[in-house]
Amino acid sequence: MAAGTRHAATGELCVDRADPAICRAAIRSGAFTGQTAGLAPGFVQGNVIILPASYAGDFLRFAQANPKPCPLLAVGEPGDPMLPGLGADIDIRSDVPRYRVFRDGVAAAGEPTDIGDLWQDDFVTFVIGCSFSFEEALIQDGLEVRHVARGRNVPMYRSSIPLTSAGRFGGGMVVSMRPFRAADAIRAIQVTSRFPAVHGAPVHLGDPVEIGITDLAHADFGDDPIMEAGEIPVFWACGVTPQVAVEAAKPPIAIAHAPGHMLITDLRNARLAVI
Amino acid sequence: MAAGTRHAATGELCVDRADPAICRAAIRSGAFTGQTAGLAPGFVQGNVIILPASYAGDFLRFAQANPKPCPLLAVGEPGDPMLPGLGADIDIRSDVPRYRVFRDGVAAAGEPTDIGDLWQDDFVTFVIGCSFSFEEALIQDGLEVRHVARGRNVPMYRSSIPLTSAGRFGGGMVVSMRPFRAADAIRAIQVTSRFPAVHGAPVHLGDPVEIGITDLAHADFGDDPIMEAGEIPVFWACGVTPQVAVEAAKPPIAIAHAPGHMLITDLRNARLAVI
Repeated sequence: MAAGTRHAATGELCVDRADPAICRAAIRSGAFTGQTAGLAPGFVQGNVIILPASYAGDFLRFAQANPKPCPLLAVGEPGDPMLPGLGADIDIRSDVPRYRVFRDGVAAAGEPTDIGDLWQDDFVTFVIGCSFSFEEALIQDGLEVRHVARGRNVPMYRSSIPLTSAGRFGGGMVVSMRPFRAADAIRAIQVTSRFPAVHGAPVHLGDPVEIGITDLAHADFGDDPIMEAGEIPVFWACGVTPQVAVEAAKPPIAIAHAPGHMLITDLRNARLAVI
Repeated sequence: MAAGTRHAATGELCVDRADPAICRAAIRSGAFTGQTAGLAPGFVQGNVIILPASYAGDFLRFAQANPKPCPLLAVGEPGDPMLPGLGADIDIRSDVPRYRVFRDGVAAAGEPTDIGDLWQDDFVTFVIGCSFSFEEALIQDGLEVRHVARGRNVPMYRSSIPLTSAGRFGGGMVVSMRPFRAADAIRAIQVTSRFPAVHGAPVHLGDPVEIGITDLAHADFGDDPIMEAGEIPVFWACGVTPQVAVEAAKPPIAIAHAPGHMLITDLRNARLAVI
């Protein structure tokens, strides 16, 4: 449904989908509730995790200790839904197309499009870099990013790659997978190495079993992969990892973006490149 | 024999093997005729190919068109055996431990330690970057470079990766192979990408058959590989490629270094890093 909504909506919006502020306004108004891939090209999109202040200290240490899956782009002030460091007038209560609400570490049914009624005075917002930034760089380099080329969500998996625990947060890394032929995999490593703020270089390539993935054909999040003969699976740390850490920490409430439904910021992808 | 000579000789030289000029003096005098791995650490070593001037123009275009296997560090003046751009008093007729002489594209028996008697007034010397430079960076990064750790020569293979032909020079790329576990392979790609002047990033990883190598266990040049379970073969373009191109071009005479017996220069490896 999300993908259909996205395509219909972007056609129907009749607004400048290249402008991040206009995209956010459409999201805030409820006119757009789909996945954000392809919106505001050139601008950084972020993974979102919102936690009560009593869990925020542990999560901050968790993110600091696990920068590959959890590269922090911004941390909000306790109780303040605005994120001035990421763009003009960003209100995290309304500016994400769809949210997931976790209670005691369990995702509740339904994906609300606004969390104004759930907001608490002690909520702290974390925004984490997203692979959309480096995917744009890969595509600009001439590589085919399969799921983008096919209009799908990236396949994501729970891996056995251990995370450094911090307080109640811990568990295994979530990884995203993109298939490439060998020469393109080498180039993809070079390109993504330039973007440490958005997961950077891959964490694994080749045999999925080595990182605890026994069924590559079936993704734990996102869409199942489409691979062609002679391609190698290449795995990157994924910003869905905090959602798995929330399953472990079991805070009374936590709110995240729905996978693929990201926060669109005013930061430019190009500014994240280290060279 | 070469390896034994090297170890015995470096023990017997009783000179400062860290100093490139002293190493070259030992080589020029004939006191040292072994492989040069481990000599003058921190300094660039080079692959050597010497051709008659009538072939030099084609080869120069060949190298320019194939920079991964043939990254040129220096080109000598026709007839001049000195290479001032690479260090003090370098005489290419005597300063390589062992040479290979090709006649009509066929390597002659024997590996002379001096080519003063073969030198011609029309000879042009080409010095090409060598993987020793990036291997040093890999080891400094904490990676195990297997053949170095085991005191062996790197395994090299004739691949089916096509070269861009120039005049009479052409053929398939020679590649060197180093095995790594996946995470280390990714790091090795990052590290070697910084050294484009010495082959740079790998050209392939994974299935050897994809690049025409049907028997990975038996190297075409150097020593056979030692691989451990869970390791991926990673392939770099190799400076032995010009010797294969000479087989195709069939010049009446061509002189190269014997594999592993490199020219030691006064250039520093660190200066080859692009960032």
